[in-house]
Amino acid sequence: MQWTKVLGLGLGAAALLGLGIILGHFAIPKKANSPDLDLEILETVMGQLDAHRIRENLRELSREPHLASSPRDEDLVQLLLQRWKDPESGLDSAEAFTYEVLLSFPSQEQPNVVDIAMTLPPPPTVGPTGDIIHSCHRTEENVTGEQGGPDVIQPYAAYAPSGNPQGLLVYANHGTEDDFKELQTQGIKLEGTIALTRYGGVGRGDKAVNAAKHGVAGVLVYTDPADINDGLSSPSETFPNSWYLPPSGVERGSYYKYFGDPLTPYLPAIPSSFRLDLANVSGFPPIPTQPIVCSLGCPVNVSVYNRLELRNSSNVLGIIRGAVEPDRYVLYGNHRDSWVHGAVDPSSGTAVLLELSRVLGTLLKKGTWRPRRSIVFASWGAEEFGLIGSTEFTEEFFNKLQERTVAYINVDIAVFANATLRVQGTPPVQSVVFSATKEIRSPGPGDLSIYDNWIRYFNRSSPVYGLVPSLGSLGAGSDYAPFIHFLGISSMDIAYTYDRSKTSARIYPTYHTAFDTFDYVDKFLDPGFSSHQAVARTAGSIILRLSDSFFLPLKVSDYSETLRSFLQAAQQDLGALLEQHSISLGPLVTAVEKFEAEAAALGQRISMLQKGSPDPLQVRMLNDQLMLLERSFLNPRAFPEERYYSHVLWAARTGSVATFPGLSNACARANDTASGSEAWAEVQRQLSIVVTALEGAAATLRPVADL
Amino acid sequence: MQWTKVLGLGLGAAALLGLGIILGHFAIPKKANSPDLDLEILETVMGQLDAHRIRENLRELSREPHLASSPRDEDLVQLLLQRWKDPESGLDSAEAFTYEVLLSFPSQEQPNVVDIAMTLPPPPTVGPTGDIIHSCHRTEENVTGEQGGPDVIQPYAAYAPSGNPQGLLVYANHGTEDDFKELQTQGIKLEGTIALTRYGGVGRGDKAVNAAKHGVAGVLVYTDPADINDGLSSPSETFPNSWYLPPSGVERGSYYKYFGDPLTPYLPAIPSSFRLDLANVSGFPPIPTQPIVCSLGCPVNVSVYNRLELRNSSNVLGIIRGAVEPDRYVLYGNHRDSWVHGAVDPSSGTAVLLELSRVLGTLLKKGTWRPRRSIVFASWGAEEFGLIGSTEFTEEFFNKLQERTVAYINVDIAVFANATLRVQGTPPVQSVVFSATKEIRSPGPGDLSIYDNWIRYFNRSSPVYGLVPSLGSLGAGSDYAPFIHFLGISSMDIAYTYDRSKTSARIYPTYHTAFDTFDYVDKFLDPGFSSHQAVARTAGSIILRLSDSFFLPLKVSDYSETLRSFLQAAQQDLGALLEQHSISLGPLVTAVEKFEAEAAALGQRISMLQKGSPDPLQVRMLNDQLMLLERSFLNPRAFPEERYYSHVLWAARTGSVATFPGLSNACARANDTASGSEAWAEVQRQLSIVVTALEGAAATLRPVADL
Repeated sequence: MQWTKVLGLGLGAAALLGLGIILGHFAIPKKANSPDLDLEILETVMGQLDAHRIRENLRELSREPHLASSPRDEDLVQLLLQRWKDPESGLDSAEAFTYEVLLSFPSQEQPNVVDIAMTLPPPPTVGPTGDIIHSCHRTEENVTGEQGGPDVIQPYAAYAPSGNPQGLLVYANHGTEDDFKELQTQGIKLEGTIALTRYGGVGRGDKAVNAAKHGVAGVLVYTDPADINDGLSSPSETFPNSWYLPPSGVERGSYYKYFGDPLTPYLPAIPSSFRLDLANVSGFPPIPTQPIVCSLGCPVNVSVYNRLELRNSSNVLGIIRGAVEPDRYVLYGNHRDSWVHGAVDPSSGTAVLLELSRVLGTLLKKGTWRPRRSIVFASWGAEEFGLIGSTEFTEEFFNKLQERTVAYINVDIAVFANATLRVQGTPPVQSVVFSATKEIRSPGPGDLSIYDNWIRYFNRSSPVYGLVPSLGSLGAGSDYAPFIHFLGISSMDIAYTYDRSKTSARIYPTYHTAFDTFDYVDKFLDPGFSSHQAVARTAGSIILRLSDSFFLPLKVSDYSETLRSFLQAAQQDLGALLEQHSISLGPLVTAVEKFEAEAAALGQRISMLQKGSPDPLQVRMLNDQLMLLERSFLNPRAFPEERYYSHVLWAARTGSVATFPGLSNACARANDTASGSEAWAEVQRQLSIVVTALEGAAATLRPVADL
Repeated sequence: MQWTKVLGLGLGAAALLGLGIILGHFAIPKKANSPDLDLEILETVMGQLDAHRIRENLRELSREPHLASSPRDEDLVQLLLQRWKDPESGLDSAEAFTYEVLLSFPSQEQPNVVDIAMTLPPPPTVGPTGDIIHSCHRTEENVTGEQGGPDVIQPYAAYAPSGNPQGLLVYANHGTEDDFKELQTQGIKLEGTIALTRYGGVGRGDKAVNAAKHGVAGVLVYTDPADINDGLSSPSETFPNSWYLPPSGVERGSYYKYFGDPLTPYLPAIPSSFRLDLANVSGFPPIPTQPIVCSLGCPVNVSVYNRLELRNSSNVLGIIRGAVEPDRYVLYGNHRDSWVHGAVDPSSGTAVLLELSRVLGTLLKKGTWRPRRSIVFASWGAEEFGLIGSTEFTEEFFNKLQERTVAYINVDIAVFANATLRVQGTPPVQSVVFSATKEIRSPGPGDLSIYDNWIRYFNRSSPVYGLVPSLGSLGAGSDYAPFIHFLGISSMDIAYTYDRSKTSARIYPTYHTAFDTFDYVDKFLDPGFSSHQAVARTAGSIILRLSDSFFLPLKVSDYSETLRSFLQAAQQDLGALLEQHSISLGPLVTAVEKFEAEAAALGQRISMLQKGSPDPLQVRMLNDQLMLLERSFLNPRAFPEERYYSHVLWAARTGSVATFPGLSNACARANDTASGSEAWAEVQRQLSIVVTALEGAAATLRPVADL
């Protein structure tokens, strides 16, 4: 072949290639193959997230009570499907996944009753402030016209057994173990009594568990105005005249100890799944329990007629398919079900969810944008009964989710109050939250970024970064729990919240009552919806950064600070005790150091790579290391008695030392018991479990071809 | 800018690019970026795998006894490191990883003894054939000069407790549960007796466990010539005159029930790890046990002086770094430790391992070749005591291995005999084994491929492929066990083995005796080492195909046949019984159908993609689905009482129906017990576990952006 021909062919080929590129450019959605986060798109999304539309979403979502599995809950499933399938602002696809789950409801024929039983002998009662009995409302007062009607479920303790205990009333503070021990110490006979407890201190169900251990026959739970209303309680000082809870307000809630469907632990609650016999279910309150209005005294007669029912409850899932790495999922979710109207809990979050999906969906349908990775939106069912929808989802798709999920973002109650952002999450998500919030204007006075406002309320001194906003850690308060504890997926929970110098309310006052309505939000919580918008922008920016960045913005080296602080707490607060029992923290020190070194070295390799022009496969391998780091802290055999909790750094900590939970808890138990060697062996076992996890995690951060 | 200038620039750029390509071509090792399996390299490797070198490897490896943790075992660690670090034929790097593990040895000062105790009352004994007592050799006869010397460990039952039971001898066949029940039925008093059992039928340790349940005080185990020597037993008919076991030969072995270091279940046996108190260790034989020469009778006095020792045992790991996807590991291994010289077990495999690493290492060091993915070679320690080295390795690097390992290939005993290939493995590896063996000439007469020879000995009729060689399933007989059962990594075990029409030997006759020597292999098992070479070529081809193919040659749709056959067995053999207890197999049918459909659809998408020119990221995503499918069958909570076994398809099956093991076992138990509902609930639970696993597996095979 002659040279000129070769050249000619070459030019022809180049022209063809050029044509191909041009064709490709217009055939494929613009930006589809954008190699990295597109700041223009980010700006567009930030600009389009509309406070007014969030307000309209909320009005519709909270128009009627939508208890899990109720007809209105089903209507909202259809509303979500309709929005997510909208040809102009919907997602690529959307689907409802239905489970058959065990819920608990009060009887409609026989309402639960708490009566003063004058036939019982007169009071040797210990009361909170010695108040005199009034009466017992079965329902909340119809203050705004929204507290009546058949769909407003009576206040009750979900999963508390039915029964009719009668007995003397004994005030038991929070109903903690210590509270009951204290009463015993005071010589008060608890056998056969009804314990009056107030919300707070321990989990709802724990009050009945602790009470039953002392022979208590029934438990009442009330909301103390001191805990939630900054002490105010008169009608004129409360809703609809302020954000405070009216005197008749009663907090509903699930009293189930675990999460997920009670009949199908570790199995999805599809109709065919094996279900436990009711006799073998654990975690329900052992004695009748009822939440009540606060003012009560002396002998009472408690009648609880709750019943368990198998009900259908649906999750709604919607997806935007990733253009380049569709098998990497950025998962964003909130529950849909409420106790009554649930304007704050959870509809404030759902209103934000719908606005986010609308804005992203519109860009998608216009062909303007498609993310690098897939974005999955989720509306969970039956969260209020114990994170049921999200848990069943993780049970059904365990492997698929564990292999592919980049991070889980939860926005449940989007706005508790207007003061500041509040984020809970694991260390790898800190940096992306910081990056996002630095670029968004804070609502309210001044010209601060959300970040700069946030740091005024929650901050800490980081050895690496100096003063930074502080992230809280993830408990099990919302649907992130199965993702972080069961699947080991880096997770976060985002909300706007209080100025703690202005209120000491345990939570927003109308929480889980019939007073949590649209007007409550519109008038008191977030008039103008600018805090809702701020949460939407924060979550939206995080979603875009996680789904569109070439390098995943998960900074695994931020775990080093946590590990170091856990280690220091162990050394300072447990070191001497452990030494007495010949247990050395040396291997833990080594493991933390190894993690720190490997994480730092990985950070350097990332920086180097970012300076060059790495190929997509190289970056994918690195991103896999980042995405999967959190998984390496999972050990399903670490805490066999704790259902779902497998994350050795974030499992529930009962011990008082803020360190590795397995170690902290085992030390607390060993120090408590006289039993000795077995309990100290468990301390050593827990220490080895965490050392193995840290060494294993460090090994995943090393260059992948190192032995 | 003018058109001519643009053209000029374009040409200049093209020239630069061309220069870059040329430079790149010579700077990067040739073939380094080869997009797919290179048939030329494959041919080269096949040609260079040298029978003579394998023979020389074996001579060196089996020159002296190399019991786990012995000085010679340590010497072999050095030998491996030296070979793998060789500048001309070594790997990229190699390292020894040492664990501190609990082994069990006979006392050197007080050898274990089995004596005829004439002081005991005369025999109401039940003997095998009523033979008369001879005597009890403490060691095997020094027939070839290799059975003497201090390094030849006395025959013993590792982990059997020491003790000195005396009692009447009772013949108990294989020592199964049924065997002891049968004796009881015959009215034979077992309390305080010594049970004489023969190898086979159940696991070694089970004999003592079953015996102890009936009050038996000690267990003797012998090798019956009918089971191993095709009935022959005279010196002239046995080694060194044939491959049969000399009369004095005794099989050693581990009698530990589980695998891994007994003191550190689920934790790596590094020095700092928590270790169980000996009192809390489970799985050791409950009564003194000793393997003996076959001919014995009447009252005996058994003295076992075994002791437990913490010893250092090392794995040696070597790696060839992948050029394109270094974070994908093709793992190939064998154990290094033997009971005595261990020429067959395990040195035949290690001789092959060293030859494979030499050939690949030489290509690597010459710059001729580097695989797409990483290849990891492993020499495991202390396998004979219970797969200890490999298990500790999987415990230490659980996440890293689970996330990244493509497949595990085990070659322990490379050659049992000369007749045919024998492969055990999970379905995804079937096709790559077939592809490899079709291209390699079989040793021995005729001009058959290994595949064509194999199909003559082991075959089955596949609904999909017609007559094909049949793969066996993986038990726990060698180091693949932790990889498949604990990590869920697709695994295989490869060997050359018997013509079953020519011998009924339970295993090669000198197994675990001092007669398993180099000459034994060289003269009787594989003169010329052509079967060793065939195994090396098979393994080598599989390694190359797994590490170099652009699309991973793991055919996940081959699981459909297995699932269908398990389902059919359940329907045929358990269906009626389940129906009686109102348990429906319907959900299982649906799950299997769903898996079949998704696997078939994935297969079609792969074919489509292979016809186009997919980019590496697309193929990586697909390969991840293939690699990780096996993981989706793991459920660490499925069989909590079975240590390490988490694979819901391949866990140990005790029930007689060849179906899903959890279902089979639960049915067997439920059918056995009078207890009723609890046992049937467990059947339902196991059914749901497997349905969930299959549905979850099918979900991982769907297009990744499908909900």
